[in-house]
Amino acid sequence: MDKAKNYHMSPDEFRKYGKEIIDWIADYYENVEKYPVLSQVNPNDIKKQLPETPPAESESFDQIIADVNNIVMPGITHWQSPNFYAYFPSNSSGPSVLGDLLSSGLGVQGMLWSTSPACTELETQVMDWLSQMLQLPEKFKSSSTGGGVIQDTASSAALSAVLAAREQKTNYLTNDKGCTGKLTAYISTQTHSSVEKAIKIAGIGKENLRLIGVDENLAMKPEALEKAISEDLSAGLTPFFVCASVGSTSTNAMDPLIPIGEISRKYKLWMHIDAAMSGTAAICPEYRHFLNGVEYADSFSFNPHKWMFTNFDCNCFFVADRSALIKTLSILPEYLKNKATESGAVFDYRDWHIQLGRRFRSLKLWFVIRHYGVNGLQYHIREHIRMAQEFAEWVKSSDDFYLVAPAPLNLVCFRHKGNDEFNKNLLETINKTGKMFFSHTVINGQYVMRMCIGQTNTQPKHVIEAWKTIQETAEELLNQDK
Amino acid sequence: MDKAKNYHMSPDEFRKYGKEIIDWIADYYENVEKYPVLSQVNPNDIKKQLPETPPAESESFDQIIADVNNIVMPGITHWQSPNFYAYFPSNSSGPSVLGDLLSSGLGVQGMLWSTSPACTELETQVMDWLSQMLQLPEKFKSSSTGGGVIQDTASSAALSAVLAAREQKTNYLTNDKGCTGKLTAYISTQTHSSVEKAIKIAGIGKENLRLIGVDENLAMKPEALEKAISEDLSAGLTPFFVCASVGSTSTNAMDPLIPIGEISRKYKLWMHIDAAMSGTAAICPEYRHFLNGVEYADSFSFNPHKWMFTNFDCNCFFVADRSALIKTLSILPEYLKNKATESGAVFDYRDWHIQLGRRFRSLKLWFVIRHYGVNGLQYHIREHIRMAQEFAEWVKSSDDFYLVAPAPLNLVCFRHKGNDEFNKNLLETINKTGKMFFSHTVINGQYVMRMCIGQTNTQPKHVIEAWKTIQETAEELLNQDK
Repeated sequence: MDKAKNYHMSPDEFRKYGKEIIDWIADYYENVEKYPVLSQVNPNDIKKQLPETPPAESESFDQIIADVNNIVMPGITHWQSPNFYAYFPSNSSGPSVLGDLLSSGLGVQGMLWSTSPACTELETQVMDWLSQMLQLPEKFKSSSTGGGVIQDTASSAALSAVLAAREQKTNYLTNDKGCTGKLTAYISTQTHSSVEKAIKIAGIGKENLRLIGVDENLAMKPEALEKAISEDLSAGLTPFFVCASVGSTSTNAMDPLIPIGEISRKYKLWMHIDAAMSGTAAICPEYRHFLNGVEYADSFSFNPHKWMFTNFDCNCFFVADRSALIKTLSILPEYLKNKATESGAVFDYRDWHIQLGRRFRSLKLWFVIRHYGVNGLQYHIREHIRMAQEFAEWVKSSDDFYLVAPAPLNLVCFRHKGNDEFNKNLLETINKTGKMFFSHTVINGQYVMRMCIGQTNTQPKHVIEAWKTIQETAEELLNQDK
Repeated sequence: MDKAKNYHMSPDEFRKYGKEIIDWIADYYENVEKYPVLSQVNPNDIKKQLPETPPAESESFDQIIADVNNIVMPGITHWQSPNFYAYFPSNSSGPSVLGDLLSSGLGVQGMLWSTSPACTELETQVMDWLSQMLQLPEKFKSSSTGGGVIQDTASSAALSAVLAAREQKTNYLTNDKGCTGKLTAYISTQTHSSVEKAIKIAGIGKENLRLIGVDENLAMKPEALEKAISEDLSAGLTPFFVCASVGSTSTNAMDPLIPIGEISRKYKLWMHIDAAMSGTAAICPEYRHFLNGVEYADSFSFNPHKWMFTNFDCNCFFVADRSALIKTLSILPEYLKNKATESGAVFDYRDWHIQLGRRFRSLKLWFVIRHYGVNGLQYHIREHIRMAQEFAEWVKSSDDFYLVAPAPLNLVCFRHKGNDEFNKNLLETINKTGKMFFSHTVINGQYVMRMCIGQTNTQPKHVIEAWKTIQETAEELLNQDK
């Protein structure tokens, strides 16, 4: 690399190094179980190995890859390990990575239909496919009043929903006049923190967000929701938004969509459904019932980047009335005006989310759906649920462990009969081995272990090994205490 | 692909198809000039070729790629063509695409330090490198009070700045209590529309956003800014935010940072600098003066995905006081708590932006900086500017065309001496040939062509051809009219 060749990587070099990276990734997938799942480094361990100043001269690709291996890799927590059971998964697959690669290579920026019509139209079609796979009501389809758009994360989708709800409730005047402090929103105590964040960002104020109580299954209590709405109305406030969760992050609790939907309709609230991970299950007919009530919703979102083999980031956000969303988020400076937009015959997705620019994310989703087919996707979702249900049975029939919440799908929340400190110690001891990685939550004041099965390559043998490790580690810790 | 092999793409298949995609991209780069730059399809041309229902069974990778070639490619507007002069560029490079591929392959989700320490620490270091390359004040470095974070777009960065400014000005009470309608913000008539969008999203209200007039170079008038602030103060309002542009989107106008900075300090406004494209020029010492005054700023953002050979999306957002940003955007539900976060020894970047989840974007930026070296990046930035300046000279010495705004760097705004209709016709006629792609703006009511030179592979021969085409097409149109 020198000035004579203008520093650029030539197509031939790109072929050579590109194939090396492809092999690197394939090797990684073949060997991912050899790495500690949870990175074992300490703060600053990675940073201190990196030069403090940027290189003045170009460096060789071989050197860069050597540094990936030696410096970066010890600092990776392996989300693609079959032994990753923490949080919600962020799973991936070969076709997704290659679709994403093609998107990077094409380097199109799809802010407007005209800046790459295929970027918009493929996305519209793939979102319509998904609405069929999930059996969403007709109103969420592009051929009807609504449609789908790919966003980065469920956080951005929730923010978009809050904003459209805010504007719709205030005759699209808040965009102009600012918030008045009269609007109130409703979530449960279990709703993902991103909705609270959205309420703050949108200028609504956390004090105007009601945390509705939950029942013994940690699902929102509709009667408590209606009571809160009534009280706010009596106090002269304006209820405008409710978020129901299909699978809360903490325990996969399922809010009752139908009564919440009826209440939201009665009081004219925008109903958003956050089905970030668990929405994917609804592509299997036997799990579609978790979405019953979605017909009441104004917006719905789930993340193929969690449990549908599509690498991060890929959130799918559907609205029933796209005009509400577009009126809320549209901007049209002169330098973005064009004939296609003016004709009204096209979608310009920059008006469907916070950002202006957008990459060609539908490619990877299209690759995934076509590579697996709906049958292939269903097969793996069923396998994950089957393994989790089996794990839940082992816990239930154990003398030392017990379930702490229902396990409707692929997340099992459980704990040892010992105290919080013991459970915390158990989790951290296992994570420290690097053999597998769990995360925790707190339910009713108690420390709880979470086992979420959704990584692409998790197989029964891994789950068996996990249960064995949990039991053996607990026994070792008990023996140490003696 | 069948159930027996679980539908997954095997590592060997991944190697095979991955290398095919690498070759596909290399072929694309070698042949990109053969495609029409602006896609020539009509609305629905792409969508109607796609099946209305998703495939039940898995399809072959060869079929998917065939559909990319036959269905998708005609709908691509080629941002990576050297003949792309529209908007701002969204350029890319081999090392960036490969760094992004590695990020997709690793599939880590860096919401917390602990969910992949390398994802956080490499980002911190690369952002510190960039702050050196741009000669940003010490306060923007992670070792001082501030630091940098990669966001998706300048829109999200501007929103983050508005929110931190809003909270800082209101003692972090707006997050809790909601907006009061008393805050006022300031931009110029030329500021990017994303700031207006951010003001709306944040609940401030467009009516509380002052569009400050500009001088003959389309730069914000500091005296008009101070007057607007004074009037708002007199009216009992609370000025809180000003955005200065280093290179407006319409014409690359340069707002005067020093007087704006002095005013923002005098009246205690948060000063954000949007240098989306032109910030990159400041890595060359001779263009660093465009950032003089950044020492007054509270936040600064620019997009390596525009003009620094890093594929979309990659915005770099720097703050002088990270605690203001973190206090504004932090959330910490139980299920995300961990020892490293509690120790305070690490950054958790999910508290630095809107989203919770985040991909490993610093890899591609690290690959680019190391592959090119600072010298290589400077070389290309200088080449782009040199070509644009040469083009501007041709326009100036032409009898038929003239410059409509100063061309400080790589964007030339010009028009034919004919009327608006003629200029519009000229632009559309050229774009319709597919040989090159320009976009337009309106300045002082006049339709203006924009020639922005920043695509990775644009060389003098392309710019010569562009000027020739513009002149010849104008003549043809004039002859047609006769």
